[in-house]
Amino acid sequence: MAKIADKYFKVDSWKIIEEGFNPDYGEVSESIFSLGNEYMGVRGYFEEGYNGPKLIGSYFNGIYERTKPDYGHYKGIVDFTEYMVNSVDWLYTRICVDGEELEISKADISEFVRELDMQNGVLTRSFIWNLSNGKKLKISFERILSMTDVQVGAQRVKLTALNFDGDVEIKSGLDFSNPHCMQKMNMWEIKDILYKSGKNAFAGIEGETLHTQQRVFSACAIKADVNEFDNVKEEKKAVVKFNLLLKQNEEKKFEKIVKNFTLKEEIEENKFREDVKAVYEEFETEKENDISSMSFEQIKEDSTKWWKEIWETSDVTIDGDEENQQGIRFCIFQLFQTYHGAVKGTNIGAKGLTGEAYNGNAFWDTETYCLPFFLFNNKEAAQNLLYFRYKTLDEARERAKALDCEGAFYPIATISGKECCNLWQHASLQLQASTAVAYGIWFYEKLYQDEEFMTQYGLEMLIEISRMLVTRGDFSQDGKYGYYCVMGPDEFQMMVHNNCYTNFMGKFTLDFTLKVIEDIKKNDKKAYDEIVGKINFDESEMDKWKKVSECMYIPYHEDSLLYEQHEGFFKLPHLNIDSIPIEDFPLYNHWSYDRIYRNDMIKQPDVLMFMLLFNSHFTEEQLKVNYEYYEPRCIHESSLSPSVHSILASQLHKKDEAYDFFGFATRMDLDNYNRNTREGIHTTSIAAAWMNIIYGFGGLRTDGDIIHITPSIPQNWNKYTFKIHYMGEVIEVMVTKDKVEISTKYGKNILVQVYDEKIELGEEAYICDVK
Amino acid sequence: MAKIADKYFKVDSWKIIEEGFNPDYGEVSESIFSLGNEYMGVRGYFEEGYNGPKLIGSYFNGIYERTKPDYGHYKGIVDFTEYMVNSVDWLYTRICVDGEELEISKADISEFVRELDMQNGVLTRSFIWNLSNGKKLKISFERILSMTDVQVGAQRVKLTALNFDGDVEIKSGLDFSNPHCMQKMNMWEIKDILYKSGKNAFAGIEGETLHTQQRVFSACAIKADVNEFDNVKEEKKAVVKFNLLLKQNEEKKFEKIVKNFTLKEEIEENKFREDVKAVYEEFETEKENDISSMSFEQIKEDSTKWWKEIWETSDVTIDGDEENQQGIRFCIFQLFQTYHGAVKGTNIGAKGLTGEAYNGNAFWDTETYCLPFFLFNNKEAAQNLLYFRYKTLDEARERAKALDCEGAFYPIATISGKECCNLWQHASLQLQASTAVAYGIWFYEKLYQDEEFMTQYGLEMLIEISRMLVTRGDFSQDGKYGYYCVMGPDEFQMMVHNNCYTNFMGKFTLDFTLKVIEDIKKNDKKAYDEIVGKINFDESEMDKWKKVSECMYIPYHEDSLLYEQHEGFFKLPHLNIDSIPIEDFPLYNHWSYDRIYRNDMIKQPDVLMFMLLFNSHFTEEQLKVNYEYYEPRCIHESSLSPSVHSILASQLHKKDEAYDFFGFATRMDLDNYNRNTREGIHTTSIAAAWMNIIYGFGGLRTDGDIIHITPSIPQNWNKYTFKIHYMGEVIEVMVTKDKVEISTKYGKNILVQVYDEKIELGEEAYICDVK
Repeated sequence: MAKIADKYFKVDSWKIIEEGFNPDYGEVSESIFSLGNEYMGVRGYFEEGYNGPKLIGSYFNGIYERTKPDYGHYKGIVDFTEYMVNSVDWLYTRICVDGEELEISKADISEFVRELDMQNGVLTRSFIWNLSNGKKLKISFERILSMTDVQVGAQRVKLTALNFDGDVEIKSGLDFSNPHCMQKMNMWEIKDILYKSGKNAFAGIEGETLHTQQRVFSACAIKADVNEFDNVKEEKKAVVKFNLLLKQNEEKKFEKIVKNFTLKEEIEENKFREDVKAVYEEFETEKENDISSMSFEQIKEDSTKWWKEIWETSDVTIDGDEENQQGIRFCIFQLFQTYHGAVKGTNIGAKGLTGEAYNGNAFWDTETYCLPFFLFNNKEAAQNLLYFRYKTLDEARERAKALDCEGAFYPIATISGKECCNLWQHASLQLQASTAVAYGIWFYEKLYQDEEFMTQYGLEMLIEISRMLVTRGDFSQDGKYGYYCVMGPDEFQMMVHNNCYTNFMGKFTLDFTLKVIEDIKKNDKKAYDEIVGKINFDESEMDKWKKVSECMYIPYHEDSLLYEQHEGFFKLPHLNIDSIPIEDFPLYNHWSYDRIYRNDMIKQPDVLMFMLLFNSHFTEEQLKVNYEYYEPRCIHESSLSPSVHSILASQLHKKDEAYDFFGFATRMDLDNYNRNTREGIHTTSIAAAWMNIIYGFGGLRTDGDIIHITPSIPQNWNKYTFKIHYMGEVIEVMVTKDKVEISTKYGKNILVQVYDEKIELGEEAYICDVK
Repeated sequence: MAKIADKYFKVDSWKIIEEGFNPDYGEVSESIFSLGNEYMGVRGYFEEGYNGPKLIGSYFNGIYERTKPDYGHYKGIVDFTEYMVNSVDWLYTRICVDGEELEISKADISEFVRELDMQNGVLTRSFIWNLSNGKKLKISFERILSMTDVQVGAQRVKLTALNFDGDVEIKSGLDFSNPHCMQKMNMWEIKDILYKSGKNAFAGIEGETLHTQQRVFSACAIKADVNEFDNVKEEKKAVVKFNLLLKQNEEKKFEKIVKNFTLKEEIEENKFREDVKAVYEEFETEKENDISSMSFEQIKEDSTKWWKEIWETSDVTIDGDEENQQGIRFCIFQLFQTYHGAVKGTNIGAKGLTGEAYNGNAFWDTETYCLPFFLFNNKEAAQNLLYFRYKTLDEARERAKALDCEGAFYPIATISGKECCNLWQHASLQLQASTAVAYGIWFYEKLYQDEEFMTQYGLEMLIEISRMLVTRGDFSQDGKYGYYCVMGPDEFQMMVHNNCYTNFMGKFTLDFTLKVIEDIKKNDKKAYDEIVGKINFDESEMDKWKKVSECMYIPYHEDSLLYEQHEGFFKLPHLNIDSIPIEDFPLYNHWSYDRIYRNDMIKQPDVLMFMLLFNSHFTEEQLKVNYEYYEPRCIHESSLSPSVHSILASQLHKKDEAYDFFGFATRMDLDNYNRNTREGIHTTSIAAAWMNIIYGFGGLRTDGDIIHITPSIPQNWNKYTFKIHYMGEVIEVMVTKDKVEISTKYGKNILVQVYDEKIELGEEAYICDVK
């Protein structure tokens, strides 16, 4: 069952480097070299066209398509899905010399190098093209997505004729014609195409999705030192053609500055129309501040500055383990690329904007794994993630109705807020998306005490989730409350009763909601009354909530200190998971579907999950007993599982186990451990990798009154440092083999607990021994 | 929750009569007036064409189509379905006078009468057509399916001009062009069409299903007193046109004799080709014994004789309750129409050959409800039903493999033997189809001691089912064996562990198989060795079977005498089913899918089911306690449920309850109690209606050493009689208000138990008081 690295990229602490092109890794590299800036993302595909296996993935956050219903038998069973749809390929380029078109799967190329620089977000790819007529052309492609103006992307292409003088024919522009890989058809109707030629060439194209009727307008300025641009007439493309005259050993270049506009919701229509109109006018006037005045170099400079600030306050350094150093930086880089608070009302898909697996849908991973990263690195991003749940509260209300519940039932998989999971057993039985939202609100509130957020958004969500929680469950005949027919976080136990995690989180949510209601009622009666009126809240509802919370059945065995994952779990047939042959994995592919569910094997932490989320509620003895019971039953078929176990193993001083489980956390994608990186980056696992270091080795705990740090250090590391944003400060932690040094960046006084001591951090660093 | 009769047809003890046509009941009537002879079936649709809601259902047993895979995510989840496909409409007729075509939804008609005569199987429909030009034409359509030559069907049309002399233009022939109602497309490719005109007109047409490549060849002779037949060229039709010259008040008629040939499996191809060739030759020669020599009248005469024999040995009479008299005769008529041992290798679809709901698939209803009827009325039919399971043993073996089991796993829904249920929660979790096959073999063996059958078919099936049963289940950590993640007969408890019915039947099957192995090994070592070699059976396998049987966990509570439907059932939240508003039914349509499963409501008998099947194993006290516990939790959402409860209520002397549950059993379709008779007859429920009288009021029990009869009589009946075929005899039972009279038709000595006494029936009737 051990996962094995598939090492391909060169190890470097700041860069991801591919030396020489191996087509077998083509799609893996596309994923790894993905760029994103939250507004949009592009996979590292070859913009000059490529006939090998590829996914021309160019995505805009919140732009999705919808399948038609095909399975509408029962109430509450979702009969469609929504999926992130590939959009305009704004990097589209074709290069032709003497009638021979560059296409790497056929071309003779040498000195291929591809590099992603995590200090500025520039992706560079260069090689020498050895033409069949003996000509040699050195080419480099650069691309960047602006981090400061997220609608903007840029491409720069440099060409050097190594042994000839002559023309190169270039096509460059915007391409809406790619099919969707699963639907096997193109999902865009083109509404407009326009061109203008002047000093630069301009092209614009507007597409509309077939079913969701969302729009993307993409405009570009192509800057090349030529006299003439021709418009190319090809379906669903806005492309210009021009010739560059090369002189031997003189570098020529052209660049394309692109600005994209999305129209996702009707309410934005006026704004979108104005934006598009402005671009049309820009094309006419070429005035300042438009795309023709931008340059690749300037965008790069701005983004470099942006990234510098990120790394200064969010970097994790590891001395003595360059692989994990590269790995964790890649994780942090991808997380900030994917989300940093730029676009209100979006969420994080399972693959971010790097691929189409899981349909681009977001899961409860957002609140459970990603949110902690952002809470400690970027408040706006954390807030925006929670705001997405507020924005989609109506859809969650509809979903609750479809499931015969009151209040709000958050979707297990979603892109627009609607439940998009058409496996009913997940969509109808998993309550953890809803309780995760409550958890996220609680966590945010704990760190930021943002009363405005709580009155404006938090309270309403909490009340609606609580309403669901007291209508989805039921009282047993002996008066215990619980949830029947659920699937907890461990998806290998389906349709169970009284799943410990679900009941525990349900109780937590109800208690927290009751507290928030009391607080807001006391502190801001006016706001409180508004909410009450808005959602027709009757305080008598709280009587049932209190009763449910009091009667909530948590299957716990006093004698053994064991939480029982669900009622009856201990009676299940035992499966020795080590007896499963390696070729049976992944089990979903090799075992009969129902066989997976008939024993005490678990896929991912369930009891251990709430014991991590609410760590301070449990004694170390309880943790130890439950860890030692459940870990041997867990096959970690979820990529999120090892990190949770690593963190708890650290806490339990099981250092080897902690490091073993940490194993591939930071390099899951760089070394393609799951052999599916071609589908996209495991964005949410990447967040868990960060948690693994900070919560695991760093020993950060945040569910008590003040944050608590109990660092340890893996044997083969010399030193590591990490930073967390907390109380308006940045706390910097350095751990060496012997010492822990904790300081604040700006010298603010902050109370923290380090090991067993409460420390007031201030201007001076606090230093102690590693325990 | 009470089901309410929708009375429409006239009550008559031998006929089903519709007086006046009500288009709102059009499709209900189509179902009710279905004819069948096991080889084929036709709904009572209007052969002259009809624009109202209709289902032109003409079916051949075992002719089916297949959907393409659309949901192939997981191993063992079925990604296609197979469905009975509508085939050639061999009744196709069009009638035209003065350019006006008869079509009842538009025509002015009067004196409409439709009658199905259950004594001969002739369906007659007559009415007067009042044309817009004032002409009045009396028309009667008759149709019959031969019970003695099941490939043959016939139609006779009589026409009388009431107030004019003149021509009527007739089109008549064979029509393959109807679309499939769910697929919304025609599923036939036409391979050949041929015509010949002579004294009669001949037409033939051969169609092939698009995906399963099965064939139907249909040939007809049209006999009309005319000089000339014209061939009509219409797509997918073989139709001739002719004019009948009518004289006022003189009846003219024409008739169509049809012979159909099906090619279902490759091995039959030569035979099919010969049959078709013979028909071609017949067309040329018009020799004797071909379709041109047959007549409607002769077919009717032969079928009348056939039905007479049926009624003589299988009739149930009820004196004092004409509605139930008609109802039970309709049930018996439909059961014999559907199946009587004519076509080896077919099964009984949920709707027989009367509609397309449930895709024409057969379920475990066959062995559980239909088999008892045939066991006591028609040995060949019973044997054929079991033979279907033997014939499809390979498909059951494949299914077991797909489910990671050894041996054979019988499909929950099938037409070809392949699992066709694409709701995995049913297909993967329900073991009762497999144990029902074992039960069927056991029952057949018990009544017929057919050693040849057991060595040739029974043993092999039993061994394969047992192999499945010891690989699908598992041992709990305290050493009890059971089935995890199953759905028992009660489909409102999904994915439970140790369902009592499943475990009970599993144990029964293993024990029975072990016994059969010992018997055959002793009695026919050679045959035994052959089977052993054929399926690679190792006697050491039996060690595990014995252990599993010994350890089988039957959740039974000694103190309360209650069987627990599954482990944990008693802990479920209680739902007072009387609190469910009537408009919530059927729950599948109005409740969120998962909500149905979250309480102690049950859909149909589960514990009570095995207590009926193995009635003599239980004390009356046990029965009473369990009946009184489970009945109030049962909402009878399965049409099979009330009969089981009625039978047990009779046994428990709950006379009123017994009669209440009997309520609509015999008239479920005639009075359209479930409001879905338009989809077809509830063929398997019809079998349960027979059981309801014979096992319920008749008190027949058959699981002990000899049959046992304990009759009672409903209060409003004066007398009832029934017959059962047993030990080569026909036992006739008559029950009046006071007396029971039991006799044998042929005077053979038969040992039976009546109430508490063992009686040797012989030439003289046995008479005793009703208890």
